[in-house]
Amino acid sequence: MREIAVTDDARQIHLNLFLPTTGHHEASWRHRGARPGEIFSLSYYREIAAIAERGKFDSLFLSDHLAVGRNYEFGPGVHLEPLTLLSALAATTSRIGLIATASTSYTEPYNLARLFASLDHISEGRAGWNIVTSWSDAASGNFGRTERASHTERYARATEFVEVVTKLWDSWEDDAIVADRASGLFADRNRIHEVDHVGRYFKVKGALDVARSPQGYPVLLQAGSSVTGRAFAARYAEAIFTAQQDLAEAQAFYADVKTQARSYGRTPADIVILPGLGPIVGDTEAEAREIERELNEATIPQVGLRHIAARFDGADLSSYPLDGPVPLHALPRPDDVQGAKSRSQLIYDLIEREKSLTLRQLLWRLAGARGHGTVVGTPEQVADRILGWVDRNAADGFNIMPPYLPGSLADFVDKVVPILQDRGRFRRDYDGHTLRDHYGLRRPANRFTGSRLAS
Amino acid sequence: MREIAVTDDARQIHLNLFLPTTGHHEASWRHRGARPGEIFSLSYYREIAAIAERGKFDSLFLSDHLAVGRNYEFGPGVHLEPLTLLSALAATTSRIGLIATASTSYTEPYNLARLFASLDHISEGRAGWNIVTSWSDAASGNFGRTERASHTERYARATEFVEVVTKLWDSWEDDAIVADRASGLFADRNRIHEVDHVGRYFKVKGALDVARSPQGYPVLLQAGSSVTGRAFAARYAEAIFTAQQDLAEAQAFYADVKTQARSYGRTPADIVILPGLGPIVGDTEAEAREIERELNEATIPQVGLRHIAARFDGADLSSYPLDGPVPLHALPRPDDVQGAKSRSQLIYDLIEREKSLTLRQLLWRLAGARGHGTVVGTPEQVADRILGWVDRNAADGFNIMPPYLPGSLADFVDKVVPILQDRGRFRRDYDGHTLRDHYGLRRPANRFTGSRLAS
Ligand SMILES: Cc1cc2nc3c(=O)[nH]c(=O)nc-3n(C[C@H](O)[C@H](O)[C@H](O)COP(=O)(O)O)c2cc1C
Ligand SMILES: Cc1cc2nc3c(=O)[nH]c(=O)nc-3n(C[C@H](O)[C@H](O)[C@H](O)COP(=O)(O)O)c2cc1C
Repeated sequence: MREIAVTDDARQIHLNLFLPTTGHHEASWRHRGARPGEIFSLSYYREIAAIAERGKFDSLFLSDHLAVGRNYEFGPGVHLEPLTLLSALAATTSRIGLIATASTSYTEPYNLARLFASLDHISEGRAGWNIVTSWSDAASGNFGRTERASHTERYARATEFVEVVTKLWDSWEDDAIVADRASGLFADRNRIHEVDHVGRYFKVKGALDVARSPQGYPVLLQAGSSVTGRAFAARYAEAIFTAQQDLAEAQAFYADVKTQARSYGRTPADIVILPGLGPIVGDTEAEAREIERELNEATIPQVGLRHIAARFDGADLSSYPLDGPVPLHALPRPDDVQGAKSRSQLIYDLIEREKSLTLRQLLWRLAGARGHGTVVGTPEQVADRILGWVDRNAADGFNIMPPYLPGSLADFVDKVVPILQDRGRFRRDYDGHTLRDHYGLRRPANRFTGSRLAS
Repeated sequence: MREIAVTDDARQIHLNLFLPTTGHHEASWRHRGARPGEIFSLSYYREIAAIAERGKFDSLFLSDHLAVGRNYEFGPGVHLEPLTLLSALAATTSRIGLIATASTSYTEPYNLARLFASLDHISEGRAGWNIVTSWSDAASGNFGRTERASHTERYARATEFVEVVTKLWDSWEDDAIVADRASGLFADRNRIHEVDHVGRYFKVKGALDVARSPQGYPVLLQAGSSVTGRAFAARYAEAIFTAQQDLAEAQAFYADVKTQARSYGRTPADIVILPGLGPIVGDTEAEAREIERELNEATIPQVGLRHIAARFDGADLSSYPLDGPVPLHALPRPDDVQGAKSRSQLIYDLIEREKSLTLRQLLWRLAGARGHGTVVGTPEQVADRILGWVDRNAADGFNIMPPYLPGSLADFVDKVVPILQDRGRFRRDYDGHTLRDHYGLRRPANRFTGSRLAS
């Protein structure tokens, strides 16, 4: 409170719940408050979504990898499919946004377009799409390929994919359905458009078999942070998930993306930037540290080592002593990594910055949120960390990654959210209804309506 | 009642609700009781599902065509995507089965397997998959092709598709997740299996990223009635939707499929046969006829003509006088039809059987349920029609196709269902919880568990 004064404008922050099975900490499921036996039960997620909605979160978000998690022996490597789970949660919630991850690498644009349009209808305008290209090799084997396409190739396909999907979402203009009982006219053919897309990767006739949805398009989110990923995000993303540990780097990322957005004719306000944050909240700092220690001690080193291997195209550190220094020379340089470039860079930077880290300490640093920021402290300290980054233009809000569920989410909602509200920085209740309302985003114009009116 | 006595065994019947947007009658949406403005609202389907569940229906079912309906100008040609809508309804209902149509022609087995496994989890064992191969040409253009594959080719792909999907559903054995907090073992690798499928159409490594679902597999349904379609159904289907107008033909179909099932090592009870039935219920027969007349008069001939064209590979009857005889010579023979063989056969047979039909009368005969059976009468008459077919081994129950929604479903539930219950032929309440329970189907064994225990 001393250092971080409320700025004059009291810019409103955004909060998204990143919702995994048992929590984000590698050992979450072993915590006594976790419920690993319920990860396939709707009632469990319903309870969690209700807590987030009580906390007035903008949205909740499900990740997706199209393959069994590599550490499935030592933690949940399976989960409900995002679009089905979010559709069910659309029926049990009323305001919170619902964001599903879906890959552009292993599905057809027509199938994806209708799933998301449908979720947007079902939720009355609360859908979001986290666009990913699937960096992990594991998925490719489930779709007839032996390895994933190159980083460049994946983003090229993603770009065309998004073009096709947004065209399909425009294919029925907002007022295309007239449903005039008397004349027998149901829909106006002049307001329905074949997309007739023929490109390098896709050939799609259209129109979509779902009418334009409440938000026009579901909110488009993106989570790639490499050079290519940032350019893609600057062009298409309306919100960005990103892993950031360091304030200066987060500021640089924030400035870069918002500046790049201008070159695509967009304004900085068109993109909401949400770094990940794993909060461990205690009534005292010591209590918070104790929760962290307990979770870290329940980790299995092999799990963390495999995560590192996965980020660094297979690099194996398992022969190095856990209490010795981190063997940086055994890792490929992030520039050469074909998988998750930006995440490997982040880990690389962390090791270079904190030279005295042992391998075990590194594993623990990554155990809480796999490289995302973490904060351990009192509710006030956590609120300060959040507002500190927002006030310094490093974030527009956070992608909250509770270490275990539902307990640490409830702590955050009950203890941190009221502070953010009291400081006038976070909504006390929803004023809008759609996810675009919550994030302050415009409803996209329909490309066909424009051309029809112009002609 | 006179003619159709209750048989000794009082065989229990099954009822499925075939749930389109505004109803099955071609002019449904123009009926004053219809709600064409709500076809994208969850609340509308929630209300309908609640009526069906109040009526103790076994299940409800959504069809799917992956393209805008050809008559979109004159009736709903767009709709919510089935898996998302059913996932939402899983949250608003508690017992009724939830069956989604999904095509094997335009999706990947891994994607489909996880969507359905997830729906089965979310609904606690109420999911069903209506396996179709997409007979309409329209879909192909949305997936990069210029025309659909041949009938034979589509079923060959469907066969391999089902093999892969069921393998994936078996890839996590039922007890694979141990979640032992103390030891840190989450899942037992000996109970998790890569499927390593390499076939003519698909190459899939597996395992699935969703654990085995409550029903083992969602119930498998099928709706193809051609020779190839029947063989496929006899081999895989646990329930069959079929269009039947004529008792004798329905009996022949019933006997044929149940007999064929034996050649795949199955018993007749392993398959539930559900012909479609569009019921128009009135308190008197005259009242029912009046509802039918009103609906028929609201049809637009062009719509019915296009339906016929679609069934008969494009045959255009629009130049023939509506009140003249049906020009049978202008239709290709069903044997030569590449699209929906069995449905064209049915229409062909109907025309041959009732030689005096005018073209308009034919259109009206098809308007109620597109070639499925219809019954117009009092609640007693409708109940008699249902039990009559079941007692004569033409059906195990019916796929109920209300002419308009929610009104004609409510009539059926409030007036016909109690008669079926009073006659001891239909459940007064659910006794089971899963769709398999309702249909009396066994939970499938896991192929991997068998081999593991045997070795
Ligand atoms: C918060 C967050 C969530 C992510 N979720 C997923 C996911 O669910 N599935 C996935 O394939 N990648 C996910 N990613 C990874 C990125 O989408 C991206 O594919 C990866 O970082 C490689 O892109 P890049 O090289 O541009 O960074 C996520 C990244 C972040 C920061
Ligand atoms: C009640 C019923 C519902 C059907 N629903 C669909 C559907 O939703 N999508 C589809 O492509 N075909 C649907 N069909 C068509 C069949 O699945 C099948 O694809 C078509 O009849 C061609 O197969 P066949 O030549 O073996 O009859 C349905 C058929 C029936 C009887």
